[in-house]
Amino acid sequence: MKNICLISTGGTIACVPTENGLKPELNAHQLLELIGYHRSNISAVDLFSMDSSNIQPEEWITIANAVYEAAKTADGIVLTHGTDTMAYTASMLSFMLAGIKIPVVLTGAQYPAVYPDSDGRRNLENAIIAATSLAGGVYICFGNSLMLGCRAVKTRTTSLNAFESINYPYIGTVSDGRMLALSEPPHREDFVFSTEIDPRVALIKLIPGLTPKVLDSLKNCDIKGVVVEAFGLGGMHSIRRNHLESIKELMTSGIPVVLTSQCLYEQSTPDIYEVSRPLKEMGIISAGDMTTEASITKLMWVLGHTKDMDEVRKLMQKNLVGELSVTR
Amino acid sequence: MKNICLISTGGTIACVPTENGLKPELNAHQLLELIGYHRSNISAVDLFSMDSSNIQPEEWITIANAVYEAAKTADGIVLTHGTDTMAYTASMLSFMLAGIKIPVVLTGAQYPAVYPDSDGRRNLENAIIAATSLAGGVYICFGNSLMLGCRAVKTRTTSLNAFESINYPYIGTVSDGRMLALSEPPHREDFVFSTEIDPRVALIKLIPGLTPKVLDSLKNCDIKGVVVEAFGLGGMHSIRRNHLESIKELMTSGIPVVLTSQCLYEQSTPDIYEVSRPLKEMGIISAGDMTTEASITKLMWVLGHTKDMDEVRKLMQKNLVGELSVTR
Repeated sequence: MKNICLISTGGTIACVPTENGLKPELNAHQLLELIGYHRSNISAVDLFSMDSSNIQPEEWITIANAVYEAAKTADGIVLTHGTDTMAYTASMLSFMLAGIKIPVVLTGAQYPAVYPDSDGRRNLENAIIAATSLAGGVYICFGNSLMLGCRAVKTRTTSLNAFESINYPYIGTVSDGRMLALSEPPHREDFVFSTEIDPRVALIKLIPGLTPKVLDSLKNCDIKGVVVEAFGLGGMHSIRRNHLESIKELMTSGIPVVLTSQCLYEQSTPDIYEVSRPLKEMGIISAGDMTTEASITKLMWVLGHTKDMDEVRKLMQKNLVGELSVTR
Repeated sequence: MKNICLISTGGTIACVPTENGLKPELNAHQLLELIGYHRSNISAVDLFSMDSSNIQPEEWITIANAVYEAAKTADGIVLTHGTDTMAYTASMLSFMLAGIKIPVVLTGAQYPAVYPDSDGRRNLENAIIAATSLAGGVYICFGNSLMLGCRAVKTRTTSLNAFESINYPYIGTVSDGRMLALSEPPHREDFVFSTEIDPRVALIKLIPGLTPKVLDSLKNCDIKGVVVEAFGLGGMHSIRRNHLESIKELMTSGIPVVLTSQCLYEQSTPDIYEVSRPLKEMGIISAGDMTTEASITKLMWVLGHTKDMDEVRKLMQKNLVGELSVTR
């Protein structure tokens, strides 16, 4: 029988009602009790009890270390986590635990597990099944859907199918106590555990009329890398309010800028339209079909390993753990 | 026979290949010729020829004025526009032309209409059909789908079904020369034409670890309103990097802050979780289920009419043209 370790970090699944609103208070043991699991092969670690709106780079390191420790004895890990930033955490863990040999399955709930009609208990059961069935890697299991952690995005604020796999096939579905495999997760030979990151990254989602001052002011915000969610394939203002000029200045001052799209699906590229051509010439880093969540966390992780602009570009545009589709 | 006016503004549909990439060069007459329309009931206005990445508040006013003029004689208007910012333009026109008595249908293409297998010619034909069939209002007709302009989001960078109707039923589908009505567009009695806007609005999409300095620096960027794409239902950091404190400071200095979700679908609300409660107490303006595109353009439009915080809140939380679902 496989040994599973449940690590709890809080989130809605662990919430109880208080007079100020929902607050995460259940620990891992209490979650297991809610689903009636008293099996000797499931261990429990209470890491912390946080609303995931407050989970930040410091917590990512704590979680990665806890997973690394647990992986020494467990065959699979389930991590309960709030849904709000779960896709960011799953993406970051994908890089910090690149090539991990056991499955790490994040799950949570849209409604507290103590509620009679909560999705939390089912999600937890499904995640445990996934953690006993999957190949190594970081995944999200939510509402029957199983997806790669670095491809997940929370797309719904309230429905039970809160997460989608973006630009990558679903890894499987879990229902009635079984996992149905739908696609092969990416395989990586070596396991490289590294929590070195530089969280000084900013995201700018462009809107028509945005003053370039917002981009310019990043230079005074102690920022070491920027991800820009541009229009469509990667367009931005080049007249009147010249975003191109602001981005050029950021890059000239040594701050790498990663270009992604504010469209949820499909890739971005500065290759196709005349307005985007200068971006390519100034060496902007294309995020390809990475999610914003993966682009952000990957940039933080890459900046923790190198500040050399060419090295950053090379790593950002290389597929590390399945986060990026490579043109063949 | 109904009189239709085609207004062209550029975009991929009007693009021709150049050595620097695609560039919008076809005018309205040339677009009509491409679909073989030489009907006396269709007039053509060449407004400008721009990549929509460069369409900004100034163009919105130009477009709204052109639509207002054309509406004096036309029974329906088709507006060709680049896809990159079409959802923003459609949202803004919905407010500027609130209650317009004729249909204004935006369309464009993912591939230039001069390409043999372009979607542009079909999209244009479908938009003309929609403009002869619909009730008054601002719409996007794209890849057979017909949706309310203020509910549209571009979700795909390359596929032909580039736009989705968010949190609102599709108005109809157009195929084989016919429109099939799927839902009733919202009805508004009075037509109020107003292009008064204040474009000094910024959008901040939160990411875990974002330094509050980015929010704080907006005060020095000549910004009059802020939309925050928070996590999930509306969560943000309250510890270590205190976004709540930064937002409170913005609001205290007279800058209204609108809370929306970075989740594509479903509504945001600061009512449910303990971490969001302080946002409610400091008077943050909930965007409900408005898209980011609608939230941004509506805030610009509202700020063009009032700077009074309570008035701004009242208007932002009132459904004007179908952009906001109201709790009953």
